[in-house]
Amino acid sequence: MNDFVFHSPTEFIFGRGVEVQAGERIARCGGRRVLIVCGGGSARRSGLLDRVVKALDDAGLAHALLEGVRPNPTDDKVREGIRLGRAEGTDWLLAVGGGSVIDTAKAVAAGIRYAGDFWDFFDGSATVTEALPIGVVLTIPAAGSEGSGNSVITKTATCQKLSLRTPYVLRPKFALLNPELTLTLPAWQTACGITDMLAHIMERYFTNTPATVVTDHVSEGLMQAIVEEARRVTLNPQDYDARANLMWAGTLAHNGLCGTGCEEDWASHFMEHEVSAFYDVSHGAGLAVIFPAWLQWMAVHHATKVAQWAERVWGVSPAATPQATAEEGVRRFRAFLASIGMPLTLRELGIEHPDINRLADSLHRNKGEFVGNYVRLTRKDTEEIYRLAQ
Amino acid sequence: MNDFVFHSPTEFIFGRGVEVQAGERIARCGGRRVLIVCGGGSARRSGLLDRVVKALDDAGLAHALLEGVRPNPTDDKVREGIRLGRAEGTDWLLAVGGGSVIDTAKAVAAGIRYAGDFWDFFDGSATVTEALPIGVVLTIPAAGSEGSGNSVITKTATCQKLSLRTPYVLRPKFALLNPELTLTLPAWQTACGITDMLAHIMERYFTNTPATVVTDHVSEGLMQAIVEEARRVTLNPQDYDARANLMWAGTLAHNGLCGTGCEEDWASHFMEHEVSAFYDVSHGAGLAVIFPAWLQWMAVHHATKVAQWAERVWGVSPAATPQATAEEGVRRFRAFLASIGMPLTLRELGIEHPDINRLADSLHRNKGEFVGNYVRLTRKDTEEIYRLAQ
Repeated sequence: MNDFVFHSPTEFIFGRGVEVQAGERIARCGGRRVLIVCGGGSARRSGLLDRVVKALDDAGLAHALLEGVRPNPTDDKVREGIRLGRAEGTDWLLAVGGGSVIDTAKAVAAGIRYAGDFWDFFDGSATVTEALPIGVVLTIPAAGSEGSGNSVITKTATCQKLSLRTPYVLRPKFALLNPELTLTLPAWQTACGITDMLAHIMERYFTNTPATVVTDHVSEGLMQAIVEEARRVTLNPQDYDARANLMWAGTLAHNGLCGTGCEEDWASHFMEHEVSAFYDVSHGAGLAVIFPAWLQWMAVHHATKVAQWAERVWGVSPAATPQATAEEGVRRFRAFLASIGMPLTLRELGIEHPDINRLADSLHRNKGEFVGNYVRLTRKDTEEIYRLAQ
Repeated sequence: MNDFVFHSPTEFIFGRGVEVQAGERIARCGGRRVLIVCGGGSARRSGLLDRVVKALDDAGLAHALLEGVRPNPTDDKVREGIRLGRAEGTDWLLAVGGGSVIDTAKAVAAGIRYAGDFWDFFDGSATVTEALPIGVVLTIPAAGSEGSGNSVITKTATCQKLSLRTPYVLRPKFALLNPELTLTLPAWQTACGITDMLAHIMERYFTNTPATVVTDHVSEGLMQAIVEEARRVTLNPQDYDARANLMWAGTLAHNGLCGTGCEEDWASHFMEHEVSAFYDVSHGAGLAVIFPAWLQWMAVHHATKVAQWAERVWGVSPAATPQATAEEGVRRFRAFLASIGMPLTLRELGIEHPDINRLADSLHRNKGEFVGNYVRLTRKDTEEIYRLAQ
């Protein structure tokens, strides 16, 4: 078990109707002028935005609105938010949406207080030391950004999708988690979210760090819960309890708990970021294609932890070799992903002729000679994995 | 799944040698005059206290010392701490020890800022609204107080052992968790700690709230991890990784994670508090006697969740009835407790002739007509459970 720091100071307020607390909570923390960040219009259409605006009005808070954040959020919207926030004298951000909205709000929160270009934080040339406080009303359980200190933004001009990771400066002060808001999520978005949260756990779970017994068992339990509830919500999208469990699982999957004491991997995420940067696919769907390919490659080259995962999460009986056990686990994982409607190949994802050389080149240009830790993948390895995903 | 708020803002710094960070962390938070709280002398003998004092000196902090906190900590030591803290102008508390030390520090932290008697917070006649900030150097993984907002103190004059629960005002700002400090813990204290942390999970796990799928699986994983690592540490007390896993498990068992979305029970803890208040036994050992008796009673009267626990944590194959499955789980739990050296009856705990009427009378005087939630126990029920524990 490695040394670690775990600090998840976000207050999670979970249950029916909690979004109406947004105003009073910001006011209690001293906020006065709020920049609301939201997406493409569903919050407006559903009436959620009206309820949130009323909550801010009731608390006597001024507010401006940054609308139109899209999936795979881009640098131009962040710049627009920084300009707007500065013009409005914003002192708090309220993200109303899913991961793209929250990640945009985080980048704006850091950028407003920074004299240089906010992209410096993403390409590693500067470190975030201060940011405006952020609150969240979550509408899509998936990215886990409501409980993390991270943000992922794509720079359109260079097709770079990069992540910024901070220990706590960008963690939201509070997250209002109302599962009712997710009852109407389309099956596709629900399934993308489920895949993303499983991937967040697996990126941490596949580690060579010995004796991570507590973290392993907690992560395995969480993965089992997600698989159970995914099956339930696929049968009945209106199942409040299944929605609630998935929402809470998505937060725990990415607030750092599942990585305590482990060297983490993240190769599959980085490989997927290239796919969604070049082909603008949904991140979760991209993971449904890349992660099984990564696991299939690992079953051959380093089966140990994949076999443990196969046994404990997928109920595989130990086979003659760890490789065979691992491969059966990957088979069941793929069957599960198919059952919730996820694509399993780049072709099914709509990418008929992926430019694999370009993906691998860009990956190693952004991330260096080696990617991941469970196996430190060379360009040859990542190219093989991209080909397995075709 | 019930609505809930989960807020665990404590920063956990985990690993070898982390106790030397105490001074710089308090200084960074603006502390100037620290009251160190510690126990019966082992921190002094081991050299830990010297290292902590040096860390405070190096950070330029003034410090006073409240020594001699004992297991089942009492109100007199809290009053001594409040007097000392006020005389010294204390603005931070640093608990160096286990649950008794941390609970005493919390009571002092709340009491210093309160004009009335601190016991008002424990008997429910006043609510804690402010307290001095607290840091922790943990030496015994057991109580989970390093990550909770709770404190348990015994009032000697009235033999009342009562708990104070706050959502976050008494949560430590940071907890320094160095597993090396636990390598020399005697087998008895290690086993008491293991029992206590299992009990903290079980008090939340045994619930009638439906569909607590995430919380159930996370709790089951954590219990499995504790049992595995308990076996390992019993074989080799010097096993750093086993000590580390137990330390982290003890924190997660009680920071609120395992209760998210559940109505909690706590009958066994309240029943044990009466035993340790009257007979001054170790809390963990008292739980090793009371909790199996409670489970045995539940196997007959409300087996549902006990049977699930038997299957998922203890690997019991489903028997003809939930009661039979549950009873096999209880049998394995008792065998586990015996294997780590815990007593299983009040007699083995050294109480030859327990005054069960007095225990049950006091329990219901302190806690009301009904105790617990999984089954709301009457005085007749709790008396039966005490008799099962004889």
